[in-house]
Amino acid sequence: MLELSEIYKAAHTLKPVIRPTHLIAAPQINPESEIYLKPENLQYTGSFKLRGAYYKISQLSDEEKAHGVVACSAGNHAQGVALAATKSGISSLICLPAGAPISKVEATKRYGADVCLVPGVYDDAYQHALQLRKEKGYTFVHPFDDLNVIAGQGTIGLELLDEMADVEVVIVPIGGGGLISGVAYTIKQLKPSVKVYGVQASGAPSMAESLARNKIERLNAISTIADGIAVKEPGVNTFEFCQRYVDEIVTVTDDEIAAAILALIEQQKLVAEGAGAVAVAAAMFNKVPIKNKKTVCLVSGGNIDVTILSRVITRGLSKSGRMFGVTVDLTDQPGQLSTLCGIIGHLGANIISVNHERTSGSTQVNGCTLRIVMETRNDEHIRQIQKGLSDAGYVLL
Amino acid sequence: MLELSEIYKAAHTLKPVIRPTHLIAAPQINPESEIYLKPENLQYTGSFKLRGAYYKISQLSDEEKAHGVVACSAGNHAQGVALAATKSGISSLICLPAGAPISKVEATKRYGADVCLVPGVYDDAYQHALQLRKEKGYTFVHPFDDLNVIAGQGTIGLELLDEMADVEVVIVPIGGGGLISGVAYTIKQLKPSVKVYGVQASGAPSMAESLARNKIERLNAISTIADGIAVKEPGVNTFEFCQRYVDEIVTVTDDEIAAAILALIEQQKLVAEGAGAVAVAAAMFNKVPIKNKKTVCLVSGGNIDVTILSRVITRGLSKSGRMFGVTVDLTDQPGQLSTLCGIIGHLGANIISVNHERTSGSTQVNGCTLRIVMETRNDEHIRQIQKGLSDAGYVLL
Repeated sequence: MLELSEIYKAAHTLKPVIRPTHLIAAPQINPESEIYLKPENLQYTGSFKLRGAYYKISQLSDEEKAHGVVACSAGNHAQGVALAATKSGISSLICLPAGAPISKVEATKRYGADVCLVPGVYDDAYQHALQLRKEKGYTFVHPFDDLNVIAGQGTIGLELLDEMADVEVVIVPIGGGGLISGVAYTIKQLKPSVKVYGVQASGAPSMAESLARNKIERLNAISTIADGIAVKEPGVNTFEFCQRYVDEIVTVTDDEIAAAILALIEQQKLVAEGAGAVAVAAAMFNKVPIKNKKTVCLVSGGNIDVTILSRVITRGLSKSGRMFGVTVDLTDQPGQLSTLCGIIGHLGANIISVNHERTSGSTQVNGCTLRIVMETRNDEHIRQIQKGLSDAGYVLL
Repeated sequence: MLELSEIYKAAHTLKPVIRPTHLIAAPQINPESEIYLKPENLQYTGSFKLRGAYYKISQLSDEEKAHGVVACSAGNHAQGVALAATKSGISSLICLPAGAPISKVEATKRYGADVCLVPGVYDDAYQHALQLRKEKGYTFVHPFDDLNVIAGQGTIGLELLDEMADVEVVIVPIGGGGLISGVAYTIKQLKPSVKVYGVQASGAPSMAESLARNKIERLNAISTIADGIAVKEPGVNTFEFCQRYVDEIVTVTDDEIAAAILALIEQQKLVAEGAGAVAVAAAMFNKVPIKNKKTVCLVSGGNIDVTILSRVITRGLSKSGRMFGVTVDLTDQPGQLSTLCGIIGHLGANIISVNHERTSGSTQVNGCTLRIVMETRNDEHIRQIQKGLSDAGYVLL
């Protein structure tokens, strides 16, 4: 396995290429605990992946470097490898599934990689990358199941203990397990009393299930908004690291992840992707015992597509009573809509969309249904609006 | 006016209560320049305002402290004064206009202030605060036109020069002018060769117009998404500071501000409010001469309402070709919608809303119009979809 000296060596190697990410206090995430964030979303490339990739490349022989590296990813690993290779002065080829979002493809190119779009899904791109390795002599940079990659990610553990020697709990996202393997190993070597918890999305709990059954499990289907940790099967190395060094693994739902993303935006002014927010979600929703404990949540990345971000915000607004949709049964007469809008405006809500439907749903032949979405203040405000409309004789469906 | 020693004294006083905001490289904002951000959106309370408010309170006499402070604001100043007073162990009363967003009211209370909601607009709340000062002996904490407040904001200039001694350009948002007065004064005292530029919203250019006419101007009407710098009239002190220490003031439009907010989210994983993003907007759109210069953009705050943020994202998506709405003239026959959606899906766009309208706009009596909004990859993708629909015989309106 690893030696602690390897982590120190990685930290020394990474010094010129990474940004130190200072802990940020996050007092509102869970008022019963003392929460800090390790914001690796602010790392170059928008995630921690640069660390492992750069250290891995630094350990290649000159001959291997001359051939260049190949990797397969539709996400943060692609950008991490691309920048790491460019910073190391070697070439990189990244295989992506052809349907990958254009923004990810562009970002990977911008960091200096050659991009190869492979028809099909991730597994096809992965097979293609392995084939290119064989044909062209590239070194394959695994996204997680590689001791050098794990050592690179472990530098986060060093930084964290260096900045906060009295930390009691560290919460880390888990996809394939490379990040938590490095972080948990480092922390348990230096300060075994610190609890290290892992968090997976409930729609992709591969490491959690593997540990529960004490053998590596491959999930058939996975589904989560946290695409960065949607991994079907843990690695051989990372599984063993998690068995030995991780105290417990818990899961969070997509709704909990969305709430965490929204909390990070509103309270901390930080953008996290789904995978980046799962540790915060676990702390917010008390999935791990952190009461009165000095706790660090690792925010692993911030590369969220803004179309997804926009949807997450909308969902979060509804959940927190700041957006409200109501369907009303109307008699189809002039003036009805105006009166209704007047009541809503008078109660201080801001209408953002109106849909008028004459052909279905109404209780009366000469009726119609109206769908109104409005901005509201909170759940109490919504109740006032519901009451105001009912009192005025409107039938809410 | 001020002395430089006052800024050092303020920095010493602020040390235990503020978070040091480290510069963050932002290479994509303007590739022709070397851009860094000073992220005061990550400051406690989500903006720089804590600095001036806390230093102001620290300079009060014991008798003044015993009476407490009053302030008037619907935004960052309210939260800054509230937390500054609480940290100083004194009471604070914040007057807000009654229509202030509930989120701002709640945040102000959470930082420990008493909140007084005054019917009417900002000016009414301001008059009420002045009246309370007279009646109750509170000290009024002005949001910008106060030398102690200016000294507190000036500590940002010290931190900035301390972290980057060879900075060449600093770009600062201007509302009332307190922030730039402190920052420009400090920088010009220590390193006069650094250029300091101010940025206002084009819908609220009070300081820009006052400087152009060489006297304080009061604007009748202001309108901008950057509500944090929507100020009708500069202060007497801040006007003089800007005359003496600021090299130039430029303006940015709401669309430019929205683009800057989106760029900060996507490239930097940082949430800025409109006022917080104007310096970045000025750098992005080459409003000031920064080519090949080491430039710091001050991101003054991140307290943006998420409903506004959601709208800004939507607007930015449309502008960058990632959301596209098309109106199509259809013959009202079964199957038409299905065929149309099939073409769009085949071209790789994701439909997010459909609106079917039979009563207007169509060129034929038996026709209808269809409004479809979809997620797209970029402008080229949009052109492909337009062509695909035209080639299939659809009439795009």
